[in-house]
Amino acid sequence: MAGEALTELAVRRGFFFGANGAYGGTAGFYTFGPQGAALKRNLEEAWRDRFTRQEGNREIEAPTVMPEAVFEASGHLDGFDDMLVACPECGASHRADHLVEDATDVEDAEAMGADAVETLIADHDITCPACGTPLAGEPVEDFNLMFATDIGPGDSQPGYLRPETAQGIFVEFPRLKEYARGTLPFGITQIGPAYRNEISPRGGLLRLREFTQAELEQFIDPETDEPPLDRVEDVAVRLYPAAEQAADDGTYHETTIGEAVTDGVIGSPWVGYYLGVAQEWYERVGVDVDRFRFRQHLAGERAHYAADCWDAESEVDGDWVEIAGFAYRGDYDLSKHDAYGDDSFTVFKRYDEPQTVERATVDPDMSVLGPEFGSDAAAVADALESLAERDPDAFAAETVTVEVGEGPDAASHEVDTEVANFSVETVTETGEHLTPHVVEPSFGIGRTVQTLLAHAYETDEVDGETRTYLGLVPEVAPRDVAVFPLVTNDDRLTALATRVADDLRAAGLSVAYDESGSIGRRYRRQDEVGTPFCVTVDRDGVEGSGAETVTVRERDSAAQVRVPVDGLVETLRSLHAGESFAAVASYHESVETDVETT
Amino acid sequence: MAGEALTELAVRRGFFFGANGAYGGTAGFYTFGPQGAALKRNLEEAWRDRFTRQEGNREIEAPTVMPEAVFEASGHLDGFDDMLVACPECGASHRADHLVEDATDVEDAEAMGADAVETLIADHDITCPACGTPLAGEPVEDFNLMFATDIGPGDSQPGYLRPETAQGIFVEFPRLKEYARGTLPFGITQIGPAYRNEISPRGGLLRLREFTQAELEQFIDPETDEPPLDRVEDVAVRLYPAAEQAADDGTYHETTIGEAVTDGVIGSPWVGYYLGVAQEWYERVGVDVDRFRFRQHLAGERAHYAADCWDAESEVDGDWVEIAGFAYRGDYDLSKHDAYGDDSFTVFKRYDEPQTVERATVDPDMSVLGPEFGSDAAAVADALESLAERDPDAFAAETVTVEVGEGPDAASHEVDTEVANFSVETVTETGEHLTPHVVEPSFGIGRTVQTLLAHAYETDEVDGETRTYLGLVPEVAPRDVAVFPLVTNDDRLTALATRVADDLRAAGLSVAYDESGSIGRRYRRQDEVGTPFCVTVDRDGVEGSGAETVTVRERDSAAQVRVPVDGLVETLRSLHAGESFAAVASYHESVETDVETT
Repeated sequence: MAGEALTELAVRRGFFFGANGAYGGTAGFYTFGPQGAALKRNLEEAWRDRFTRQEGNREIEAPTVMPEAVFEASGHLDGFDDMLVACPECGASHRADHLVEDATDVEDAEAMGADAVETLIADHDITCPACGTPLAGEPVEDFNLMFATDIGPGDSQPGYLRPETAQGIFVEFPRLKEYARGTLPFGITQIGPAYRNEISPRGGLLRLREFTQAELEQFIDPETDEPPLDRVEDVAVRLYPAAEQAADDGTYHETTIGEAVTDGVIGSPWVGYYLGVAQEWYERVGVDVDRFRFRQHLAGERAHYAADCWDAESEVDGDWVEIAGFAYRGDYDLSKHDAYGDDSFTVFKRYDEPQTVERATVDPDMSVLGPEFGSDAAAVADALESLAERDPDAFAAETVTVEVGEGPDAASHEVDTEVANFSVETVTETGEHLTPHVVEPSFGIGRTVQTLLAHAYETDEVDGETRTYLGLVPEVAPRDVAVFPLVTNDDRLTALATRVADDLRAAGLSVAYDESGSIGRRYRRQDEVGTPFCVTVDRDGVEGSGAETVTVRERDSAAQVRVPVDGLVETLRSLHAGESFAAVASYHESVETDVETT
Repeated sequence: MAGEALTELAVRRGFFFGANGAYGGTAGFYTFGPQGAALKRNLEEAWRDRFTRQEGNREIEAPTVMPEAVFEASGHLDGFDDMLVACPECGASHRADHLVEDATDVEDAEAMGADAVETLIADHDITCPACGTPLAGEPVEDFNLMFATDIGPGDSQPGYLRPETAQGIFVEFPRLKEYARGTLPFGITQIGPAYRNEISPRGGLLRLREFTQAELEQFIDPETDEPPLDRVEDVAVRLYPAAEQAADDGTYHETTIGEAVTDGVIGSPWVGYYLGVAQEWYERVGVDVDRFRFRQHLAGERAHYAADCWDAESEVDGDWVEIAGFAYRGDYDLSKHDAYGDDSFTVFKRYDEPQTVERATVDPDMSVLGPEFGSDAAAVADALESLAERDPDAFAAETVTVEVGEGPDAASHEVDTEVANFSVETVTETGEHLTPHVVEPSFGIGRTVQTLLAHAYETDEVDGETRTYLGLVPEVAPRDVAVFPLVTNDDRLTALATRVADDLRAAGLSVAYDESGSIGRRYRRQDEVGTPFCVTVDRDGVEGSGAETVTVRERDSAAQVRVPVDGLVETLRSLHAGESFAAVASYHESVETDVETT
């Protein structure tokens, strides 16, 4: 199975591996080795190009440690929990909801609450996966997933490692709107680490305690701003809407973004726009579209404030993995920070023309209300004021009735209309304060790296032997090109190979240089890390009176052409820009692959 | 003074600002706004190009949270402290050593120890800078600067936010050497966040609690590996060696890297090599060489294991600021992890030819030693074995004397040489296990950003008005180019300007588009954020029968040329690659700057 072989390759070739191995390892933390870090960086750069640069959005970089007040406002302090049950015997911690889901037909145990999960653990005689001790009767508790720390010495300030990059954008909205000169729509992006203190981290890059997110917060005026849907309306997508998931017969809704938005399958045009942009981007970076879909959140999965949510999912080792989420979050995030924070999280929306509005007000005569209603007098005055705003016609009669207090203290009072001093003023307003709505495409970078490797992993036969290679697209491949002297006992070859490698580096390419082992083994090494092109300096290239030449080999086809050294940078740039190897071969001499390959 | 004006500009234009302002701010944490994040990223990319790609080094990405065992080995758990004194009245925390240095002639209070600092606080009647309460008699304590957290639930594992990126490299050396196929020298780089829970963070980017480092760990065989010094031997540098600092007359040692290494002013050729590379790199990214120097650490400043240390320092607002350090760290880091960790932190160094060595051994007759020495017998056998290795000649006599035990238990024992069974074996060895030495260039990215802004900040007069601009080099400027329609009430201009902006973005350039306010104001906005070129679409460019044209304006000179739209990408690429504006102007029509500038 590709999964284990790929994991072995990832460790052996330096894509990624569990961190701190010399100290027994630390669950949930991975280090990207030289190949993996380069792949990850190229992927981030491709995301930046598409979601920041091409969209005209702006990227920021906020700290990863944030103070408690931010997470009180965002709701993470109270609600960002998983269900924990600890083994009384061995002390191992487990996700209680996962144990129940594994042992029963329950699909979403977390939604049932802790008491119900405790009951199910007892009823199904669920035991500790680590040591087999029964867990019946053990408490199921909410465990907050944020890493806590203390900022500064002395009476220190509680801080947390951010559980998502998004809060670093939301919390700075008061400044960010200034940079956008107060004008909607605008988009802010951020790429960086986020942290979740998972109870049970999974292997590989799929559920880590420290991971990288790329998030875009698109701030819009929900009444007037529309996305440039025409740019992506013809993009074909495989949707898995809630209805198809309920039918459970495995059929997808194959459509285009334009149709899906028109038909209402995708509820928000902004979400639809970014699904289209994402579909094109995933294809560009090498996701296999046959192992990819957009799945709509079911009603129970969505946060209460999210109007429409879709996940991008890829198939990795037979499982569907969430690799991005697209949510219409309404005004939830900014209105929470507006309520908790000191600054204003609204924008001032200027009307095209100043509007003249009538505003009903009262100016109650307290010298009458006081003696008449005693301690209720102030409440009566407030009630009159809000009634004037809500229903000015109520003041047409001689008396007006208002309700004050709640529950057992509720009372109804009749007031002379004259005492209320009701009037209607004409006011000119130039605009209104608006809390922008947020559309959030949120990408998991590590999970996308894992997807790219899984989808790129190929085996075939070359020269009668099984070969493993990673068919990564040039834009994300860790190295742009590898350079080899065919043999190392000929100074002419090593000198030219070194010069070629230096020249390619100076041209900004990422170059692997290798003179160790047979040429066949060197090709295989580069195949395994997905280097799209290999340049070999051989004797034919330096002998004779003509210009110096090298061979260029394409990874996937293992085909070779002979190219003058003078034109090498240009040739490689064309190939990286998307020109086919066949086209390059058509105006260069092809080379028989008679080199030894073992 | 430029400092305050620059800080105001940095906040207003979106370079950087104190984080979480809406929640009262969090000392020591800054957010990079859209301009600053782009500048920072470009700087990191330039570092990556020079110190990773061009050097043929490899970059990794390790987690920022690491387990306690790593910092036990590295020494950070015990020794990474600052001196803390807290005010008994207001509770404010202060750096005790800084208070003493500010109030006395002492230059390095930390080196004196806590007791001496307590005494000095009392003797000099030092008071709390926040509230004026005397601090005499308050304890001075070591405060560990690492942010602590807990990894996982239950019996949780202590973890820390890494105080430097370097440990993420050192701790993975056992794998990294595999990727280098066990061959020295090789270099590993990392760019990423590091954390220090400073007692008193300073303003701006100079002393933050969360900051970005770019570090290179160069692993070498100290006996045989030499740097390619010829590449930088002619690089001119301004050195401030320890001797010149002692003389304190402000003279520098102006020399070249080659001379400084030959003369022994720079002790390590590897340190010398990277000083040369760094000097060229700083010039490339826009550091003013007249406000830059390399300062050697004084004997008291160096860690005990560091043989030669230099700092890169830049002048910012009249102060010299450390922006990078270059240290020869010997085998300190790897030998510590080798001692504390489970894996091997050595490389196997194969001899050119197998070496035949004589090895003296003993095989003591325990049936004799046991009865004779009782509980000391095993210690006597060990002592004989180590004596054989150390001094085989001692076994030439009939008896041999060994010492066992320590202190009051020490004893001297005489043993018959025959009982020791001394012999000399001939062994063939193919190589030896070597702990590589480490050369570490370590760069502070935020401090370099602050330096670039300070050195780029300029004011001049344009069209009779004072202008502020940032003379950033194109490689690091936040935006490559800005595009404007001259006026917005002519659809031909806005349509072409939009098309030009889209085309430039598609060509990979970072583009600002602005149609708000007078053209002069738009130029000033871009000048303030350092955009090197502005493209304006005017009526002359779209009228008439010729090809469409635009004007291109250079930031520093405010000069303009008219360029065909067809050749615009090419022209901008040449300018970014370093072609002078004068050269471009020489084959294009120049434009009178008769536009309004306010």
